[in-house]
Amino acid sequence: MSLSYRDAGVDRDAAAIAKRRMRELVDSTRTDAVRASFGSFAGRLALAEGEELVVSADGVGTKLEVAVRSGRHDTVGEDLVNHCVNDILAEGAVPLAFLDYFACGELDPEVVVEVVRGVARGCRRNGCALLGGETAEMPGFYPEGVYDLAGFIVGRLEFPAVAAREVRSGDVLIGLESSGIHTNGFSFARAVIFARMGLEVDDPWPGLSASVGDVLLRVHRSYLGPLREECAAGHVRALAHITGGGIPGNLGRVLPDDLDAEVDVSAWRRLPEFSLLAEESGADPEEMYRTFNMGIGMIAIVSSDDADGMIGRIRSQGCPAHACGRLVTGSSGVRLLGTDW
Amino acid sequence: MSLSYRDAGVDRDAAAIAKRRMRELVDSTRTDAVRASFGSFAGRLALAEGEELVVSADGVGTKLEVAVRSGRHDTVGEDLVNHCVNDILAEGAVPLAFLDYFACGELDPEVVVEVVRGVARGCRRNGCALLGGETAEMPGFYPEGVYDLAGFIVGRLEFPAVAAREVRSGDVLIGLESSGIHTNGFSFARAVIFARMGLEVDDPWPGLSASVGDVLLRVHRSYLGPLREECAAGHVRALAHITGGGIPGNLGRVLPDDLDAEVDVSAWRRLPEFSLLAEESGADPEEMYRTFNMGIGMIAIVSSDDADGMIGRIRSQGCPAHACGRLVTGSSGVRLLGTDW
Repeated sequence: MSLSYRDAGVDRDAAAIAKRRMRELVDSTRTDAVRASFGSFAGRLALAEGEELVVSADGVGTKLEVAVRSGRHDTVGEDLVNHCVNDILAEGAVPLAFLDYFACGELDPEVVVEVVRGVARGCRRNGCALLGGETAEMPGFYPEGVYDLAGFIVGRLEFPAVAAREVRSGDVLIGLESSGIHTNGFSFARAVIFARMGLEVDDPWPGLSASVGDVLLRVHRSYLGPLREECAAGHVRALAHITGGGIPGNLGRVLPDDLDAEVDVSAWRRLPEFSLLAEESGADPEEMYRTFNMGIGMIAIVSSDDADGMIGRIRSQGCPAHACGRLVTGSSGVRLLGTDW
Repeated sequence: MSLSYRDAGVDRDAAAIAKRRMRELVDSTRTDAVRASFGSFAGRLALAEGEELVVSADGVGTKLEVAVRSGRHDTVGEDLVNHCVNDILAEGAVPLAFLDYFACGELDPEVVVEVVRGVARGCRRNGCALLGGETAEMPGFYPEGVYDLAGFIVGRLEFPAVAAREVRSGDVLIGLESSGIHTNGFSFARAVIFARMGLEVDDPWPGLSASVGDVLLRVHRSYLGPLREECAAGHVRALAHITGGGIPGNLGRVLPDDLDAEVDVSAWRRLPEFSLLAEESGADPEEMYRTFNMGIGMIAIVSSDDADGMIGRIRSQGCPAHACGRLVTGSSGVRLLGTDW
């Protein structure tokens, strides 16, 4: 029987209902300084002429449960920082400061220190100060050994052109590869790997030498390194961070009303984890592409003249990247071509 | 048998151990822009000459469990905003933007919308934009009906003198009354009220006409309204937001090495909730004053010449306030006088 994200306990409809009703509450708080909030990758706030802050909040989701199963707590913090860094980069910002929120039922100093070690590593690697945080011990709120982790980032708008998203018909999509599942779709992945297949974190991933824990815990890639100079040089017209909702959900957010994106999903290599998840879950490609990043963690929209050079430079920074589609006349839709797994 | 915060499931020693080890991790991320981070009420980051951001992260703690018991979800968000607003005010800042993080096992749109309604009300009342947030559905992470809520605030340093804390021997402490338990000590309070006394949220609070739920859920007061003009006029030399750690833990944070604070705890009225909690728990005054705000939510340190006028003005804004002590030669200690309950 095929599995869906809904079966795995995540109700996208409930989230959509809540989101609609939250929107008016958010709007009721709007101040003159607000430049972007609801529905963006990050909020934008004008401070002074030509100076804007970009802020975002995120969690790690149930990837945390894999960390708990594995007893490896020093990677999820870096996932969180990189997720936030990518979100504000998609709004044209570079990070200044990060804060974390760690909550658990009973505080284990070893665990929280390992978690913060990952947060601090992520901050250092992205040139971002860890400027504060909250550690909450909440008896009865979390099952034994379980914790939650959320993060908050403040950045400065440095690439207004990326935020402006002046994309055109004929622009090329450059897909930057993900390192794996990143931090979205874990309730689904866990339902397949642990509940359905009965694997343990120390088992080898079927067909790979790496363990299940290694594959699932691979750190969410930060795209600040490979993209910073490209943004500064004005080569990037828009960025979509591929998180919950996948390529359709996130690429669609940066398209104008009169353009569609055509994405050729055969343009990049299929990571073995997504093949296994598709096969074992029986989920159709649409469900897979809505739940997972499917191998692409960031999509840059660029002029066709700039694409080849940029792909070469991104690759030379160690991040595999591929031309994977283009913008055509349309109505803000995303079409996936070649999804016959 | 007397109850302690430790008995109620909160281990302050574990937290202190974790904190010491986190400090060096935080320091490893320091950038040139960082002005204050670990151990402050909020982090401070220089943006440009004379321009600083002040940021803070907080949770609501197990006050959330009272909201869940009561089925009243629209107040805890305002608690959270006000808590954060007070934290950055103690570092001399006024709020610009707020972000929330809501996490649960199974998303109930009604509940999350009520929670965000409280967050939005708190934002409006403090002139702060709700600029983003994250709603996380994490199956298996939270018992049924339970959720967690954290918040992040970004403010602008507007009162550098408050941040500078140039306090002097002879300065007067002005205690601004709390509205009740605010958001600290709830694991202790719940252990006494629900577990030990067997009360329900709809029962009347012993000796009061208000219900247990009403008393426990009273919203954390924001001190921005009563203190903003006083800070702008230069009357405030330092502020201590009285949260976890109580008056000793928080007033101590703003004292220089060569001064002590003497606090006369008979200077303000005893809120009936703290009397009941002390009586029923059998906790000694030291434990009570380390766990709860005990009726004072913010302490302003002011010149003795300014104290009387300021107390009158704060009261005229609807916030009861009292001269409750002074600074004397010492070594950063806080002495509570008259704690014989």
